[in-house]
Amino acid sequence: MAGPGFTPADEALTTADDALLQIAHETLLRHYRPLWHTIAAAIRGRDGRIWTGLHLGATVGRLSICAEAIALGRAILEGDGTIDTMVAVRHPKPDEAERVPAVVSPCGACREMIMDFDPAAQVILYTVAGLRRVPASRLLPWPYRR
Amino acid sequence: MAGPGFTPADEALTTADDALLQIAHETLLRHYRPLWHTIAAAIRGRDGRIWTGLHLGATVGRLSICAEAIALGRAILEGDGTIDTMVAVRHPKPDEAERVPAVVSPCGACREMIMDFDPAAQVILYTVAGLRRVPASRLLPWPYRR
Amino acid sequence: MAGPGFTPADEALTTADDALLQIAHETLLRHYRPLWHTIAAAIRGRDGRIWTGLHLGATVGRLSICAEAIALGRAILEGDGTIDTMVAVRHPKPDEAERVPAVVSPCGACREMIMDFDPAAQVILYTVAGLRRVPASRLLPWPYRR
Amino acid sequence: MAGPGFTPADEALTTADDALLQIAHETLLRHYRPLWHTIAAAIRGRDGRIWTGLHLGATVGRLSICAEAIALGRAILEGDGTIDTMVAVRHPKPDEAERVPAVVSPCGACREMIMDFDPAAQVILYTVAGLRRVPASRLLPWPYRR
Repeated sequence: MAGPGFTPADEALTTADDALLQIAHETLLRHYRPLWHTIAAAIRGRDGRIWTGLHLGATVGRLSICAEAIALGRAILEGDGTIDTMVAVRHPKPDEAERVPAVVSPCGACREMIMDFDPAAQVILYTVAGLRRVPASRLLPWPYRR
Repeated sequence: MAGPGFTPADEALTTADDALLQIAHETLLRHYRPLWHTIAAAIRGRDGRIWTGLHLGATVGRLSICAEAIALGRAILEGDGTIDTMVAVRHPKPDEAERVPAVVSPCGACREMIMDFDPAAQVILYTVAGLRRVPASRLLPWPYRR
Repeated sequence: MAGPGFTPADEALTTADDALLQIAHETLLRHYRPLWHTIAAAIRGRDGRIWTGLHLGATVGRLSICAEAIALGRAILEGDGTIDTMVAVRHPKPDEAERVPAVVSPCGACREMIMDFDPAAQVILYTVAGLRRVPASRLLPWPYRR
Repeated sequence: MAGPGFTPADEALTTADDALLQIAHETLLRHYRPLWHTIAAAIRGRDGRIWTGLHLGATVGRLSICAEAIALGRAILEGDGTIDTMVAVRHPKPDEAERVPAVVSPCGACREMIMDFDPAAQVILYTVAGLRRVPASRLLPWPYRR
């Protein structure tokens, strides 16, 4: 629920968004493996096709790979590489009371990646108004420029 | 100049901020090495002490280390680990027309790190109103939660 | 040509290996984009199916994603996730005299990933005896254990 | 105990090595914080001076920083940046039966970093013959070349 909250720029979810979220959810349930595959992501390209991704854990955590990156790699290799909308869901850990996979915001690294590959992308995340579709550009204000 | 721009929450630089920026600048000029040490950072802790850091390049770019991380490591090992204010400067590349080191915003990974270690930290960066001191929390809206 | 060189444990390439290398090569030529997509990888699973991957560059180099990770993500999502043999090829940079994509060894991060996901994997790389298929375990002696 | 084991190229520890290991150990005990500071490293430069480092954990594990990198950053900023010998120790987790900090091998990312900054560096690690000082070049056979 953290963040600047709902603004008119944030969109309520459409039926297509609900389907995207559902696909991310199903991908996670099919592949979930504690420590190794705990997050799934789904990208809907501008042509409506959907690409899923899975977190790759690592013995050395620093060397893990985000689910969003796998989904984007597939979108580039198999689709047109555009990101209309992206969403990620996380599985609760074995010892967490909460048992339902939850939508998670992209990490700082993925925010850079999304903006690098499609600055007009949108991301589904929790706002104070509930699940909303937010422009990715709002997730990385004052970006690093080289 | 990108970003949401100046708001009343953003502070103009103080004399102490100017000194911090100057130290980052001097660190970069002393250690600059094309491809390997191109960015320097400086952290001022809440007790006023300053810790500098240097970017560590890598043959495999993914394995490079941000200057901010080195500065933070020193702040933790040698100081109290607090971040009152942080700034980073980048050296122009040999083929860039611009010849003056410029203040750069922290990357998405460093934004996570700053918020992990001191959520009340401030960062000096360029806004539409020029150099300003901005709360780090504004750099990572709707953060990832695990 | 660096490394301990040829030993009886290293295998000469088979026809299937040549095909794997060819597919990595074609993936790179199809998707090559300077700075952004400069390396392609291909994994052959134990069932003989092949999964390709592409390097995802980044404005902040530390946040780039290795081609091997994309290929592995696809192998897990679409296949059985095993790695019989992996290979990666790099495109020459615009200013390099050499114009032919070359087989490259996996970086240290990918070596960890390969061993995490399939410790019996093999990697095609250059040895003093030319292109050989080498056990991935030989690429990461005395691995980190947590 | 994994790895190719003892060879004549590996050196038994000297008194200076024991002191280096002791300093890494003390650094870890002083700064240990579960999840956040679980590994410490120490570098002895060629002039005999010692620089320590500390692992920086992260909410998003991929964004953590290795202790070796902090130590190297300090060696470059405060010393001559050479690595004669490096060692790292890991604290047992709260739920681990083993209670003694143990020497750990550098991860694949740190192997790249060590070779990038000092190809003649040596690393203290466990071999089948016990703790030995091993050339870093042996930890990354057939390295990635760009």
